[in-house]
Amino acid sequence: MDEERMNPFGPAPEFTLPSAAGGAVSLPDLAGSYVVLHFFPRTGTPAWAEDVRAFQALLPEFTSLEARVVGIAPDSLSTLARFAANGGLTLLSDPDCAVARAYRAVTPEGRVQRATFLVDRAGSMRWAWWRGKVAGHAEEVLATLRALQAADEAVNPLIHSRRAYRALSGEPVAREALQRLVEAAHLAPSCFNNQPWRFVIAQGETLDRVKGALSGGNYWAKRAPAILALASHRDLDCKLSDGRDYFLFGCGMATGLLMIQATQMGLVAHPIAGYDPHAVKEALGIPEEYVLITLIVIGKRGEASTLSDKHRAIELGPRERKPLSAVVAWNKFGDLYQTEGI
Amino acid sequence: MDEERMNPFGPAPEFTLPSAAGGAVSLPDLAGSYVVLHFFPRTGTPAWAEDVRAFQALLPEFTSLEARVVGIAPDSLSTLARFAANGGLTLLSDPDCAVARAYRAVTPEGRVQRATFLVDRAGSMRWAWWRGKVAGHAEEVLATLRALQAADEAVNPLIHSRRAYRALSGEPVAREALQRLVEAAHLAPSCFNNQPWRFVIAQGETLDRVKGALSGGNYWAKRAPAILALASHRDLDCKLSDGRDYFLFGCGMATGLLMIQATQMGLVAHPIAGYDPHAVKEALGIPEEYVLITLIVIGKRGEASTLSDKHRAIELGPRERKPLSAVVAWNKFGDLYQTEGI
Repeated sequence: MDEERMNPFGPAPEFTLPSAAGGAVSLPDLAGSYVVLHFFPRTGTPAWAEDVRAFQALLPEFTSLEARVVGIAPDSLSTLARFAANGGLTLLSDPDCAVARAYRAVTPEGRVQRATFLVDRAGSMRWAWWRGKVAGHAEEVLATLRALQAADEAVNPLIHSRRAYRALSGEPVAREALQRLVEAAHLAPSCFNNQPWRFVIAQGETLDRVKGALSGGNYWAKRAPAILALASHRDLDCKLSDGRDYFLFGCGMATGLLMIQATQMGLVAHPIAGYDPHAVKEALGIPEEYVLITLIVIGKRGEASTLSDKHRAIELGPRERKPLSAVVAWNKFGDLYQTEGI
Repeated sequence: MDEERMNPFGPAPEFTLPSAAGGAVSLPDLAGSYVVLHFFPRTGTPAWAEDVRAFQALLPEFTSLEARVVGIAPDSLSTLARFAANGGLTLLSDPDCAVARAYRAVTPEGRVQRATFLVDRAGSMRWAWWRGKVAGHAEEVLATLRALQAADEAVNPLIHSRRAYRALSGEPVAREALQRLVEAAHLAPSCFNNQPWRFVIAQGETLDRVKGALSGGNYWAKRAPAILALASHRDLDCKLSDGRDYFLFGCGMATGLLMIQATQMGLVAHPIAGYDPHAVKEALGIPEEYVLITLIVIGKRGEASTLSDKHRAIELGPRERKPLSAVVAWNKFGDLYQTEGI
């Protein structure tokens, strides 16, 4: 991959272009579908025409995988319309190559260079092909899409691999990375968009004071280069009938997103409850009337040898969960697990 | 991509192999680092040797990106050790090709076929190369890793693209997909691993009864093919000092993961609070003493034209959030946003 190439893991640049079938097509309107974006120099060249026709021939299979195949060329709308007449392929006209340029699918001389991008249902690029053989290209894109769809139907790999690890290396974590974690958390939804979460990031001497307030069982968190305190107040969010106070639920959603972001960044983000809340509030200046619902211990993974025997066994052992049937039912609560005495 | 190839978006199969540097290397032990897995037939062939030496030459750059480069070949440990002596590259011996076979990096005749896999910090494959030119290969892997790392430092694309969309198509969602959403939610952590979340998935006639209990503002949710009720009870989770009841916080973390899973699957998962909790509890048989904290409306995205003017404007408008400085502070709570009167 040359330096000049598009980052094939990044967001797909948005665009709106006129379609040979009439009207315009915007990338954001296709969200929820997979999108194959195929940039090609011109329908008039036999090799490129063959390439586009190969996508046309496979269109029913792409459609059955909930994918839209979109060809983009600098040709005029009328040229593209003649070409697409029987095929049903979406062809968009990009006469000044502005979109091709946004995808870096142009030569230094400004001519379109053949490239294909596979965009997922969330609008993110997942695979790219630059130049390469025309023969078999559409088939390879289809096979890659099939693999992607199969992977996307499985449990998200970040959700799957996240664990409440305790062994930390003690390495520092950049301020920017800590801020990115909160940015991700802040994208959570909340009741009436109240955004009830308040984070205080403890580092340096303040962090030492927070560590002094940890319970004995959280000795491992003393190796953390940062701890995020998450506090809120009941009045910061909806208070609805039948016990539905939303502030802690909202903080939970934000923490869920934060943990996923941390896992992507190769960080542990372990929410704990074992600390003296008054001492931590005092150290961080959090108003006493707030609920300090969790401290989120941040760090890079380290050696399990730093842990107690009990914690080492948990760290290296399998994940423990109740069977799914204890927490989910269809249409009737029925036999869902209840603690004794409720 | 042939049908016989490894799914390059799936989890990287685990393995443990002896290293030419002594000891053994397990893939799970490398979690938290990027891993380049390079399968090659033999160090003795000039072309493959050149390939491996190219990785060796770039080792400092891979290391600076927090990546481990691991070469795997059927050669004996002593052959690999002689080859690796000056380079510092991790070379693993896979004499019966069992690991190569797990990665489908073998010919039908059982010989190793050159292939390289880029594994992310969570253990998921993100890119793969099969055969292809030796010249420039290591450089291309490095450039791809650099692009991946840059993307992983940004906000996760599923977190970024998730929105509380209201426009639903009305298309059905498979039972298996609904179950997958709850599976993802059930991987959330919780206080003392109490797993306080209880989901009831409403479909069919029961769904109609739930829809009858929605507030007027949630008219749009009547197009949903399924609604997940999430209920819990204070006694299902830790109740700690200073107002720290964890059950709703835990339900929030689970909902955070569920929304990410839904976004990956091209689904809307929109938690709402506007419903008559008693009527929904009755429809679903949820014990009256439980808190029915949210209904999560599930569906595929549809046309914004089905929405009220107000909701259409929200659906198509920018996302609204307080500035980050209103919800996060360094070391001191200080000026964080508080609602009036607290």
